[in-house]
Amino acid sequence: APQLDGYFKQVDAFADKFIDRLREAVAIPSVSADASRRPDVVRMGHYLADQLKKLGAEAELRELGKQPGTDLDLPPVVLGRYGRDKNKRTILVYGHYDVQPAEKSDGWDTEPFELTVQEDGRLCGRGSTDDKGPVLGWLNAIEAHQAAGIDFPVNLLMCFEGMEENGSEGLEELVMEEGKKFFADADAVCISDNYWLGTERPCLTYGLRGVNYYAIEVSGPGQDLHSGVFGGLAHEPMTDLVRLMSTLVTPSGEILIKGIAEQVAPVTAEEEGLYDGIAFTMETLHESLGSKTTIFEDKKKTLMARWRMPSLSLHGIEGAFYAPGAKTVIPAKVIGKFSIRTVPNMEIEKTNELVIKHLEDAFKTLGSKNTMKAYPVHCGNWWVASPKHWNFEAAAKATERVWGERPDFTREGGSIPITITFQEATGKNVLLLPMGSSTDGAHSINEKLDKKNYIEGTKLLGAYLHYVAEEPMN
Amino acid sequence: APQLDGYFKQVDAFADKFIDRLREAVAIPSVSADASRRPDVVRMGHYLADQLKKLGAEAELRELGKQPGTDLDLPPVVLGRYGRDKNKRTILVYGHYDVQPAEKSDGWDTEPFELTVQEDGRLCGRGSTDDKGPVLGWLNAIEAHQAAGIDFPVNLLMCFEGMEENGSEGLEELVMEEGKKFFADADAVCISDNYWLGTERPCLTYGLRGVNYYAIEVSGPGQDLHSGVFGGLAHEPMTDLVRLMSTLVTPSGEILIKGIAEQVAPVTAEEEGLYDGIAFTMETLHESLGSKTTIFEDKKKTLMARWRMPSLSLHGIEGAFYAPGAKTVIPAKVIGKFSIRTVPNMEIEKTNELVIKHLEDAFKTLGSKNTMKAYPVHCGNWWVASPKHWNFEAAAKATERVWGERPDFTREGGSIPITITFQEATGKNVLLLPMGSSTDGAHSINEKLDKKNYIEGTKLLGAYLHYVAEEPMN
Ligand SMILES: [Zn+2]
Ligand SMILES: [Zn+2]
Ligand SMILES: [Zn+2]
Ligand SMILES: [Zn+2]
Repeated sequence: APQLDGYFKQVDAFADKFIDRLREAVAIPSVSADASRRPDVVRMGHYLADQLKKLGAEAELRELGKQPGTDLDLPPVVLGRYGRDKNKRTILVYGHYDVQPAEKSDGWDTEPFELTVQEDGRLCGRGSTDDKGPVLGWLNAIEAHQAAGIDFPVNLLMCFEGMEENGSEGLEELVMEEGKKFFADADAVCISDNYWLGTERPCLTYGLRGVNYYAIEVSGPGQDLHSGVFGGLAHEPMTDLVRLMSTLVTPSGEILIKGIAEQVAPVTAEEEGLYDGIAFTMETLHESLGSKTTIFEDKKKTLMARWRMPSLSLHGIEGAFYAPGAKTVIPAKVIGKFSIRTVPNMEIEKTNELVIKHLEDAFKTLGSKNTMKAYPVHCGNWWVASPKHWNFEAAAKATERVWGERPDFTREGGSIPITITFQEATGKNVLLLPMGSSTDGAHSINEKLDKKNYIEGTKLLGAYLHYVAEEPMN
Repeated sequence: APQLDGYFKQVDAFADKFIDRLREAVAIPSVSADASRRPDVVRMGHYLADQLKKLGAEAELRELGKQPGTDLDLPPVVLGRYGRDKNKRTILVYGHYDVQPAEKSDGWDTEPFELTVQEDGRLCGRGSTDDKGPVLGWLNAIEAHQAAGIDFPVNLLMCFEGMEENGSEGLEELVMEEGKKFFADADAVCISDNYWLGTERPCLTYGLRGVNYYAIEVSGPGQDLHSGVFGGLAHEPMTDLVRLMSTLVTPSGEILIKGIAEQVAPVTAEEEGLYDGIAFTMETLHESLGSKTTIFEDKKKTLMARWRMPSLSLHGIEGAFYAPGAKTVIPAKVIGKFSIRTVPNMEIEKTNELVIKHLEDAFKTLGSKNTMKAYPVHCGNWWVASPKHWNFEAAAKATERVWGERPDFTREGGSIPITITFQEATGKNVLLLPMGSSTDGAHSINEKLDKKNYIEGTKLLGAYLHYVAEEPMN
């Protein structure tokens, strides 16, 4: 990719300009979970569409109707297109322009909606890394190509949503509907909305765990009871629920539901060798955990536990006493919440059946007169792409060119449900190409994107498109 | 007690006047748990003191200082005295003039702070039965004696507090301090702040369970975690806590902590015969429970479970996810709350030791790297008085005279901590003499006191004092 030197030079020359663009975007407090900020979210969508148009791209603001259960308009999805050259490949990119809530009083060192450039290069502000920086990276790449007089190597389709931090309401339907329409030309998909595993080595992400979320309702009495009056003479829903929840997983993370382990894909010999080379240390993990309470002492078992093994977490109980203090209530109806992170080759339906059967069997053994109902609340599948696809190869070459080393090929323990949706809607390979690093604090106070990651990351996105154009379609 | 006929006649003649007095008291929304209502609570204390003075009694408003942790003045305790005749016995009575919160919008059929007289005789309003009706009963008794020209049979000491529904802040200290001062002359104590076991037969109450409240803190991670990122690789405090809580009690109410059962007083042959005659049916219990989920099918086992057996209830968990919806958090620190209702001959210290040891042993078996801390939050002892004391005998005779039948001698499953305090402060026998019935709904919407219970109850309080004066001091 010979034109890259010119492109990189232009990106460096425009560094301050690109930081100003990020400053403008951060200044719009597009908090999707806060109804009173909805006009700001919409304003942010319009800002993006205007910027795209100024760069000569087509941009449509697609309305999604009302937010279910409210009178609020959903923020529009920005559908953009740059280039219609039939001789070029077409890459579909996704990002989101809404952000997590933030208040200075949460403990921020700086105003969250004023981008602050620190001496050490940190660009601090809400949305800097999640996900305004990466979204603007695509716009920066277009602009730098134009200024440097370098032909843009691909046609770019863009899908930027404004509800990612609040459930992506309406997006799945839109993506499925546009799969063979607006997104029809896409040869591959690239999503930049995750992070490096650490702070040193870049990575490409090809797998995510799924998540099945469950509720266990136990009820009996007609209303909350006084434990003095009824303690010892009535079956208490909390007693039953806590027993049921205690049958699900051991303190060492072993899932006790029969049939789950049998569904998990066996570890192959090839896979065994994948983990040791990954840039990841237990020290960094202990730091992000804030304690040394990891189950495993070694990196390989820990990465496998996060990436390719299922896990079960108990989240809490609805309906019980939860406040500080000492209330002597017997709750009449309690709902236990837990979820299972799923991996290949677990099937959603099969897993649900096993979980419900386990709970029904366990409840029978309690001999309680209370009533138990267990059910899945929502289920999202795991996702694993082929990292040998030209889409990944192009990104790997771009990474090596920009950062000077091969990226790690990683998976993640969490889920980004829209990844599978794009894969299903387009039938094409999906790549997760992160810009920021593990210490950016996406959903925390003092969220930041390092200037280096923003500027080199902008180079990376452009370089990726150049290698995409060159890569043989295998 | 020959003067009782005249007294009863006068009470009947004053029925409307007494209902008006209750109407005035209910109209003062003396909600002690609501800071904004504090002036109303204070106003209610002044109202009582004024009424007592009008009746020729002495009344002092004893200030208790600030409510701990706030800038609010505690409501004053009304200390009253009626009569200083050295040849008469002295009875100390206790009641409270504050009430539970109430809003029409909670589901009340009538305005909670307007006494409504229903056709069927129900006097509806917040505080009608808990505890303004019984408190005014003593004032009514004084007034009726005066109007009928009948000599008041005893000296009456009164202690009416305004913080009962909000922790009785400061009362214990005052009672202990006045035990040998203001309360020094008391020959016995009578508290009217509980209820008949059912709706038909009156009762006298001679026992209460105690309550030891415990917290189990489990912590590990430095902050709440994302279950996608950390699920399966970190020890989760919720998993440990739920396991610990599941070791405490069976779904059938059996306490699994070693050494608790051994502390419980054995059932005597005499006691065996006590339960069958009690006016109590499983049908009524199922009604008040709102379901048929009782552990036992028969009355005797059920009453024993409530009155003389310990019980353990799990109340909830602080720090976990408790809201509706589906949040995939791994809580970093969770605090389980449970309590044990205690009975003779359980000792507070011994019980605490057994509970903490049980939890520490159980935690060790979990093999978790998290940290566990278990401790008692507050402990209040059980109380059992001798129902063969002249104080109870006088009340039983009064009940037979007013209601036409012997009362049941009952215990209760709940605790009224001030009962033991009065016993310890005065060294005298304490009697619980209820005015209202089991369906009054003391802390619920549509609280009521039946007119019959209010008027006959006023007769009962007066008659009790007459029999007290006659009863041989055995
Ligand atoms: Zn994001
Ligand atoms: Zn995010
Ligand atoms: Zn009360
Ligand atoms: Zn009460």
